[in-house]
Amino acid sequence: MTPVTHDLVHATQNAFGTGSLAAQIPFGLYIFKRLLSVGVKSIFGVPGDYNLKLLEHMYDDSLKDTNGSTVEWVGCCNELNAAYAADGYSRYTNGIGSVITTFGVGELGAISGLAGSCSEDVKVLHIVGIVDYEDNPEMRLRNVHHLVPRLNDSNFIGPDYRIYSEMVRDKIACSVEYLDDLNTACDKVDKVIEDIYKYSKPGYIFVPSAFVNQLVSSKNLVERPTISLQDSVTRTPPGEARKLTNKILDLLYRSSTPAIIGDVFCDRYGLTKELNDFMNRTGIVSFSSVMGKSVIDESSPLYMGLYNGRGHVPSVIEKFLSCDLILHFGIEKNEINYGNYTYPYNPDAKVVELHPAYIRFYDNLSKKEEIYRNVNFVDILRLLSEKIELEKLSLKYDSKFTPYNANDLKLDDQGFGNDETSDITQVYLQKHLPESLNPGDVLISDTGCFQFAIRDFKLPSQVKYIAQSIYLSIGMALPAALGVAKGMKDYPNLHILDYEKIEPDYQPRLILLEGDGAAQMTAQELSTIVRHQLPMEIFLWNNNGYTIERIIEGPTRPYNDIAHWKWTKLFEVFGDFDGKFSRNSILETRSQLLNKLSELKSRNSTSRKGVDFMEVRLATMDVPSQLSGLVKDLIKNKNYE
Amino acid sequence: MTPVTHDLVHATQNAFGTGSLAAQIPFGLYIFKRLLSVGVKSIFGVPGDYNLKLLEHMYDDSLKDTNGSTVEWVGCCNELNAAYAADGYSRYTNGIGSVITTFGVGELGAISGLAGSCSEDVKVLHIVGIVDYEDNPEMRLRNVHHLVPRLNDSNFIGPDYRIYSEMVRDKIACSVEYLDDLNTACDKVDKVIEDIYKYSKPGYIFVPSAFVNQLVSSKNLVERPTISLQDSVTRTPPGEARKLTNKILDLLYRSSTPAIIGDVFCDRYGLTKELNDFMNRTGIVSFSSVMGKSVIDESSPLYMGLYNGRGHVPSVIEKFLSCDLILHFGIEKNEINYGNYTYPYNPDAKVVELHPAYIRFYDNLSKKEEIYRNVNFVDILRLLSEKIELEKLSLKYDSKFTPYNANDLKLDDQGFGNDETSDITQVYLQKHLPESLNPGDVLISDTGCFQFAIRDFKLPSQVKYIAQSIYLSIGMALPAALGVAKGMKDYPNLHILDYEKIEPDYQPRLILLEGDGAAQMTAQELSTIVRHQLPMEIFLWNNNGYTIERIIEGPTRPYNDIAHWKWTKLFEVFGDFDGKFSRNSILETRSQLLNKLSELKSRNSTSRKGVDFMEVRLATMDVPSQLSGLVKDLIKNKNYE
Repeated sequence: MTPVTHDLVHATQNAFGTGSLAAQIPFGLYIFKRLLSVGVKSIFGVPGDYNLKLLEHMYDDSLKDTNGSTVEWVGCCNELNAAYAADGYSRYTNGIGSVITTFGVGELGAISGLAGSCSEDVKVLHIVGIVDYEDNPEMRLRNVHHLVPRLNDSNFIGPDYRIYSEMVRDKIACSVEYLDDLNTACDKVDKVIEDIYKYSKPGYIFVPSAFVNQLVSSKNLVERPTISLQDSVTRTPPGEARKLTNKILDLLYRSSTPAIIGDVFCDRYGLTKELNDFMNRTGIVSFSSVMGKSVIDESSPLYMGLYNGRGHVPSVIEKFLSCDLILHFGIEKNEINYGNYTYPYNPDAKVVELHPAYIRFYDNLSKKEEIYRNVNFVDILRLLSEKIELEKLSLKYDSKFTPYNANDLKLDDQGFGNDETSDITQVYLQKHLPESLNPGDVLISDTGCFQFAIRDFKLPSQVKYIAQSIYLSIGMALPAALGVAKGMKDYPNLHILDYEKIEPDYQPRLILLEGDGAAQMTAQELSTIVRHQLPMEIFLWNNNGYTIERIIEGPTRPYNDIAHWKWTKLFEVFGDFDGKFSRNSILETRSQLLNKLSELKSRNSTSRKGVDFMEVRLATMDVPSQLSGLVKDLIKNKNYE
Repeated sequence: MTPVTHDLVHATQNAFGTGSLAAQIPFGLYIFKRLLSVGVKSIFGVPGDYNLKLLEHMYDDSLKDTNGSTVEWVGCCNELNAAYAADGYSRYTNGIGSVITTFGVGELGAISGLAGSCSEDVKVLHIVGIVDYEDNPEMRLRNVHHLVPRLNDSNFIGPDYRIYSEMVRDKIACSVEYLDDLNTACDKVDKVIEDIYKYSKPGYIFVPSAFVNQLVSSKNLVERPTISLQDSVTRTPPGEARKLTNKILDLLYRSSTPAIIGDVFCDRYGLTKELNDFMNRTGIVSFSSVMGKSVIDESSPLYMGLYNGRGHVPSVIEKFLSCDLILHFGIEKNEINYGNYTYPYNPDAKVVELHPAYIRFYDNLSKKEEIYRNVNFVDILRLLSEKIELEKLSLKYDSKFTPYNANDLKLDDQGFGNDETSDITQVYLQKHLPESLNPGDVLISDTGCFQFAIRDFKLPSQVKYIAQSIYLSIGMALPAALGVAKGMKDYPNLHILDYEKIEPDYQPRLILLEGDGAAQMTAQELSTIVRHQLPMEIFLWNNNGYTIERIIEGPTRPYNDIAHWKWTKLFEVFGDFDGKFSRNSILETRSQLLNKLSELKSRNSTSRKGVDFMEVRLATMDVPSQLSGLVKDLIKNKNYE
């Protein structure tokens, strides 16, 4: 199989047919041509009267790239789900995830999805179809539908057409363009896309319905056939880049036990291959972070585990605290990703934080720091790889630096036996689920208890792991899986960087892990999965409610209960009428679980079809090992039954 | 049956046990005691870690009013649905609809619901559980989960804890209090409630998790046992009120063909009974508006129909244009409610617009207007009723002023015959659905084609009609019906003002009309309806997609299609496992429809149980008569098949 290059840019560059020089085309068509030119092949959303004219342009015959691809509309059941799907599409393709809605009802429906994409640095573009009467004296006083009127004097003063754009500007989006001038509209479309790449944050374009049929020059598409991630990122001034690279190399050459952390921005800026190559060439050990899990190929003997401060696997902590130099690539500091701000280093360690907007040198002994702004780690990593002289490294890792082994979690001590008919527990899942994954699979987890377990999985080679880590909106993963599945279909094997570690002709599985409370939030999107015939495996953790909340407060309170659903019939009501698309099962015992995991793992993958949906019955207060301490405290402190 | 007074205030005043004088209670308990004191018996929402401590206070033994009622938590599947449910609860009870979420993920999930409540003047209170570290030097730099970090320098600068409150303040809520001082917290809770009543717009209270267990004085609850709608509204200065009343009476006495319009603010400010009494006492004819439909009792011989400008029933237009004085009570001017701003009057007519914040006198002949600000129509209507001298009226309505008759729509000319096995059409539904309603029923419609038909229904006496009219967010009605049903259970027959027109011991039906595309948006809330065993009838219009969009653009485009669902199995998967709660049917022919309507209408109502769910099969491009012109244009202009 010919490898697909990781960088989407190469896949699409010059793919766009230039046609006649700077032809005049409808602005709505410009938008879709531009989206297609940056690799967007699937667009998510919901139609509404203010975006219908725009959507019509998706059907223009000239909307094809030179490979013959066009965009496909993936209509979702509601706008929040569409935003989640766009997020998933971006996370898989590392390109732009696009969602189109109508203003007011649509975009406010989607807004929590965009806030999540912002929190998680995901490249989502939200195109909002609007009506714009600001400059129309006859119309501007009218309170139109979908548009919230003024709080006062709405019968006298017209609405604020920009009200919704002002809610998001500089808050949850790095770039917001409210198009009010057709002459600059194309430039603004391009600018928002560029900004999304540059800052790895969402962007918005508000498109008046009246613009989309008007003609604009297509010259931007000719002069700039595509807009690539690499061309869009902020560049470090070369002198500064060299100076900082040398500073880091200096530290490296003097270090005995350096470590790399592969964090989230490595994924977002397309540096996964570079970072793994750097690790492999140098022999420097690596750790993962919560948000960065699966950047580092965990099958490497250099992978030491996920470090997240004190509350983590003791052997991993021990190794991390023995490192005298930490190179933290693509760092995000937040409660979840930085050990709740208790993130110990070796007392003598030197730390280098490498971020898209700064480099920070920190000496844990002297407590001194130096911060360099307006420098981008993208350039530093590249220069490090170019400039490093391997013979100058003198790495001295002692015997504790063994490859990460999930046995370090000591799950067998958690008290489950070999009884095949016993109940399935989260700890049992922790032990057996990772082994059931194949190299190259794609794993998505929703927010909930089990998400904590995944931190300490040892993932097979090139398993891509996707989850919301800091915004933590339950329900996000289900529609995100729709987006990921579309991304996998549009760009098969895009996440595979080293085919030698994958079975020949292997078609990666997409595996979604969903909590019951989470799934109820967004369940209707299963019907879109049916409609688009997207293959995946779904494990639904049925533990009767919001267990993640129960362990914090109110374990037996009704507010932590949820409605009872017949989970294994959902696909039938949502469109799989003849039962040929989905295979539904309930897993209640360990042997049932193991049999299913084994079946899924070893299934002939030549052509993945349909969905396997497994409702896994779990006890209400059962949690993975990482949370068991929390539960013990709860029992002790609250005397609940 | 003892009538329940329309004004919730009387129902709850002095219902709250005062207990010991100004006892110290936890602030979280204060919140629920205050909510209960204003008549909130059901609260909608989703738990999240930042609101769990607050929710615990719902279970305090002292949380009971003197009737022994307490609050009930209605956990919803997601936050948008919870906001819609709170909206429905408020619309039915005319009190406060309450929704509680956690910040970020929860409140942004709900925000479109609140924007809709704002657009539609519905009294919804959104309580957001937050964490607040602003004043905590150790914590304030931390990026906590659910909270979007700063767009720049988030690894150095802590988040803006107020980011979400700033998105809504002065935009979609009349009152936003971000509690940061325990000493003023109770006052602020009371203030927001008062503001919601005063402006008939939503309000927000952001409650730090750290506050809810801290003790506060309960003196507000002692000094002010309840906060009533009537006490909260802005009062007109008495002199001004008398002057304006006399001005209006003067116009009335000199008028021959005056008319009343009962518009939306009459409902929101609890004036339905007063307005109908005024109409009946004076014999002045009345019209409805789109947003105000069902304020005026349509069984009255004085009801002339719904007027909405040019594009309406000819006989209604004729009558309206013969009126020489229009008293438009509770007016809202927007695209939907004011004839798309083409709202003709008789050339010689005088118009009086009566609004909560202004009175406007307009002379259609001279085109002169006088506007009086800071005057509230609530006071004016009351004074008009008190001061009017009936003998001074000289009404001269000619023979065209016949009571509104749905036959005026001339539906029989729309070309359907008497073939019982024929397909059901929207026009057929228009004709037969209204006849199937009983006096006192409650009707809710979602946004969509059929909503246009309802405008011209002649509703039986005291049928309460609920719909989103201007925000028009499809899917809203389904969870709103949950809220309405809870309201009907908490306050049985609250909407019945005249028992003589209702069957003895009649238990009003709740009837929900849903489009298929709309239902897919929020369908999971059916499971909450099952969970709470709330009785209702649901008609699901299955016409294969977004027909309301099809008639605007892209009638055969895939983007207007939706996924196919097995609608009549939804209740089973959503919790009605043994099939005892729901009765599901598919209606495809006219005789099936008529039989079902007849069955539902005449069913013994002594105890309504369960849900009747009817999937009604309709043709894809079939629309009610009001939209048939639009469809004809579409066919003519677009040559679609």
